[in-house]
Amino acid sequence: MKFKAADIANLLNGVVKGDVNAEVWTLSKIEEGSEGSISFLANPKYEEYVYTTNSSVVIVNKSFEPSQPINTNLIVVEDAYKAFTVLLNHYNSVKNNKTGIEEFARISETATLGEDVYVGSFSYIGTNVKLGNNVKIYPNCTIGENVTIGDNTILRSGTQIYEDCVVGKDCIIHSNVVIGSDGFGFAPNTDGSYDKIPQIGNVIIEDNVEIGSGSTIDRATMGSTIIRKGAKLDNQIQIAHNVVIGENTVIASQAGIAGSAKVGRNCMIGGQAGLAGHIKIGDFVQIQGQSGINSDIKDGAQLYGSPAINATDYRKSYVYFRKFPSIVKRLDELENKINKTKS
Amino acid sequence: MKFKAADIANLLNGVVKGDVNAEVWTLSKIEEGSEGSISFLANPKYEEYVYTTNSSVVIVNKSFEPSQPINTNLIVVEDAYKAFTVLLNHYNSVKNNKTGIEEFARISETATLGEDVYVGSFSYIGTNVKLGNNVKIYPNCTIGENVTIGDNTILRSGTQIYEDCVVGKDCIIHSNVVIGSDGFGFAPNTDGSYDKIPQIGNVIIEDNVEIGSGSTIDRATMGSTIIRKGAKLDNQIQIAHNVVIGENTVIASQAGIAGSAKVGRNCMIGGQAGLAGHIKIGDFVQIQGQSGINSDIKDGAQLYGSPAINATDYRKSYVYFRKFPSIVKRLDELENKINKTKS
Amino acid sequence: MKFKAADIANLLNGVVKGDVNAEVWTLSKIEEGSEGSISFLANPKYEEYVYTTNSSVVIVNKSFEPSQPINTNLIVVEDAYKAFTVLLNHYNSVKNNKTGIEEFARISETATLGEDVYVGSFSYIGTNVKLGNNVKIYPNCTIGENVTIGDNTILRSGTQIYEDCVVGKDCIIHSNVVIGSDGFGFAPNTDGSYDKIPQIGNVIIEDNVEIGSGSTIDRATMGSTIIRKGAKLDNQIQIAHNVVIGENTVIASQAGIAGSAKVGRNCMIGGQAGLAGHIKIGDFVQIQGQSGINSDIKDGAQLYGSPAINATDYRKSYVYFRKFPSIVKRLDELENKINKTKS
Repeated sequence: MKFKAADIANLLNGVVKGDVNAEVWTLSKIEEGSEGSISFLANPKYEEYVYTTNSSVVIVNKSFEPSQPINTNLIVVEDAYKAFTVLLNHYNSVKNNKTGIEEFARISETATLGEDVYVGSFSYIGTNVKLGNNVKIYPNCTIGENVTIGDNTILRSGTQIYEDCVVGKDCIIHSNVVIGSDGFGFAPNTDGSYDKIPQIGNVIIEDNVEIGSGSTIDRATMGSTIIRKGAKLDNQIQIAHNVVIGENTVIASQAGIAGSAKVGRNCMIGGQAGLAGHIKIGDFVQIQGQSGINSDIKDGAQLYGSPAINATDYRKSYVYFRKFPSIVKRLDELENKINKTKS
Repeated sequence: MKFKAADIANLLNGVVKGDVNAEVWTLSKIEEGSEGSISFLANPKYEEYVYTTNSSVVIVNKSFEPSQPINTNLIVVEDAYKAFTVLLNHYNSVKNNKTGIEEFARISETATLGEDVYVGSFSYIGTNVKLGNNVKIYPNCTIGENVTIGDNTILRSGTQIYEDCVVGKDCIIHSNVVIGSDGFGFAPNTDGSYDKIPQIGNVIIEDNVEIGSGSTIDRATMGSTIIRKGAKLDNQIQIAHNVVIGENTVIASQAGIAGSAKVGRNCMIGGQAGLAGHIKIGDFVQIQGQSGINSDIKDGAQLYGSPAINATDYRKSYVYFRKFPSIVKRLDELENKINKTKS
Repeated sequence: MKFKAADIANLLNGVVKGDVNAEVWTLSKIEEGSEGSISFLANPKYEEYVYTTNSSVVIVNKSFEPSQPINTNLIVVEDAYKAFTVLLNHYNSVKNNKTGIEEFARISETATLGEDVYVGSFSYIGTNVKLGNNVKIYPNCTIGENVTIGDNTILRSGTQIYEDCVVGKDCIIHSNVVIGSDGFGFAPNTDGSYDKIPQIGNVIIEDNVEIGSGSTIDRATMGSTIIRKGAKLDNQIQIAHNVVIGENTVIASQAGIAGSAKVGRNCMIGGQAGLAGHIKIGDFVQIQGQSGINSDIKDGAQLYGSPAINATDYRKSYVYFRKFPSIVKRLDELENKINKTKS
């Protein structure tokens, strides 16, 4: 798809300085521009690039005053950064507007589909599944029986959702995510073997949640594992059975939350962090990457270490850990002095 | 499916107190009960809920004596917890009793299938594959050539098994598991590049193993990577080439076992733990989450830390790590005293 | 496939000592040999096995002089280890020579396919995709629009590649890998919720890269996430948006690299290591497993710990960490002595 500078200026409530017919078909950083690309300049730190860029069009702030000649075409707007985000979203919505049922899709006769739904080839829509309006199911997904998926939600290819789970509206589930697999529950026998504890609950994903590729979210033993609205999960996150993740909580990649842990809202959990089972994390808690949390945590706490303690305390202790050999040397010297003194 | 209280009492060798015709169609915790659900009361701690629950039926112990009026229907059994587990298993076996070959399944002419096998749409059964009786292959699985899968084993959707691997009886393999991918073996060249070392072994999963969603198990360079009977692996576990996991060993999510490590039987390995390659872990070893093991470990050891040491020792040392600033302050003060004394 | 000893000797420029008609159909370690298998003896440590092995044929060095009677057939070559690798590669290339389009594959009319391409059932080749010569796409893969894949590259089953990504020649992508999922980028709103920052870049995988099963590589926000030629990634690796991994760098399983980090060439990154975002790692850097790197690192550095420091320093400090209780006891004793002295 090609667009003219004039059309884009119109979309962004901007004014073209230069060729209104200049054509663009991709987006790029200003320092990586090429013919046909559109870029933006918001941060004055990058001003030099606007004089040398190969981008065909650059979006700039109203307040920008060139100090050298400009060889590209400008679109002048109130706020270049915001305008570029508008453009990005427009670009993405045009790109991801697939609709219809592709060949080799398998849709149960008892499933109900909203308007403008897309189901890609090799995707399996089980019995009694309900897909809202504008739901997009990319190829190679399996949606188990009785699953409900809300309006505008996108499932990228290879995602697997077990029976009875619920996904809200406006969610994005990336490739190869698993939702609703059995929780890890076993009862030990006297001979050292284990009996499986049946896992008959489900997973509920509320509205406006994004889940990164390769993440796994187990169903509850009974009741529901819940990801509350607005939560954002990065790639390869593990959420165990009966966990609750609070509203707007953000979890970086490869973190793991063990069974029945409850995480509050607006928390930030760093990559590769691990939370033990059956603990309660307050709201607005910040957990440094690779930390291990094994007890209840108050609202607003900042944590680091394994097991985690207050982040500032951890950093202080770690400074001394790094100096441990010299600290022990000081102790050695003191002992020598004392022993000399005594003798 | 709806069941009457009388039928369930019959299944559980229990007696109904209340309406023998009360109908139930789902299971729930006693505190989350709703019309049509059946719950249980085993732990006296939860007794209060039996007087207020909305569950239509509650299973109780013979020994339970109500201290208030009961508004629901009871089924009285010898052991309510065990009875509920029987009910759960019954519920699950009724639910997962799919059989037959769905449309758009691709089964090689040279594959052999036992009785009551289920193969879902978009699943690929390669040449010479052998599926035992009652095997269930959910949609979007790929089973490579010469693979053997034992009776009653379930593969959930999206699971990929490479050629020549063997899966035993009564196993559950959850979604998006990979079994038999190449081990990570490369020989360095003088120019800094690497040549691939071909990985021609396989993976053997013995009977009664459960593997969590998103886990990956690499084939051996030569010979076999082996998961022994009764082992339970949680989600996103990584098992490298030529590893052996002993009988009934339990591994929590996101743990990784490097190449050629041998793990004994009845071990418990915590989440996000990492085991180095070519080490030998004894039987009944317990490894705390996030620990890193880089040497051979004796039977029954309990480990913590990275690198891991005896778990009790780690916890003791960590108490002092937390107090490190105050310990250094004490050292400072001692030095000051000594220096004053000397001057 | 059965081969005669004479044919194999011919392939390896070797000489048969024994029955030139001895038949083999599999490869095994010398200590695990069985009838029909071929093994090798290179390391003198294993010499004893050549006298007792059940392998039908054993490849040995020219320099090998038996000290006992040999009951198997030998193939004598210049370098037994190298010869066996040649044999392994030959075995693998014969095994993985699938070609053609299987039934239930879906290939866009606008896609272009080179010679000898294989596309398995249930694989989806999107619009404008370009597959080079000899590309092998196993079943249940999804290749998004505009993706380019170079000659001889193999995608194992279940791999998902998002639109606009580029994969080079001679790559191996194992099962359930995700390439090109959205980077994890969100802009906070004043009410605590987040807006998605569109991710419109792509992923570029250069030539001769191997990526282990279950790994996830996010597309750039703008521009490209890049894996340079010869890099080797193990299973369950996480590569965030705008990361660059240098030539011939090797990353062990479950490591994670956060957004915009740049890793140099010929580095070795241990399992479960984590690299923070926006840092620059030099060339030839070695990072111990489970380490956490949060700052720029010079060429050739060796690192350990979380946060990581020089590996030797970490090990020294950790020795004292283990002795922490006895060190504090020494401090206690010194204090007692001083206080006695003073009183």
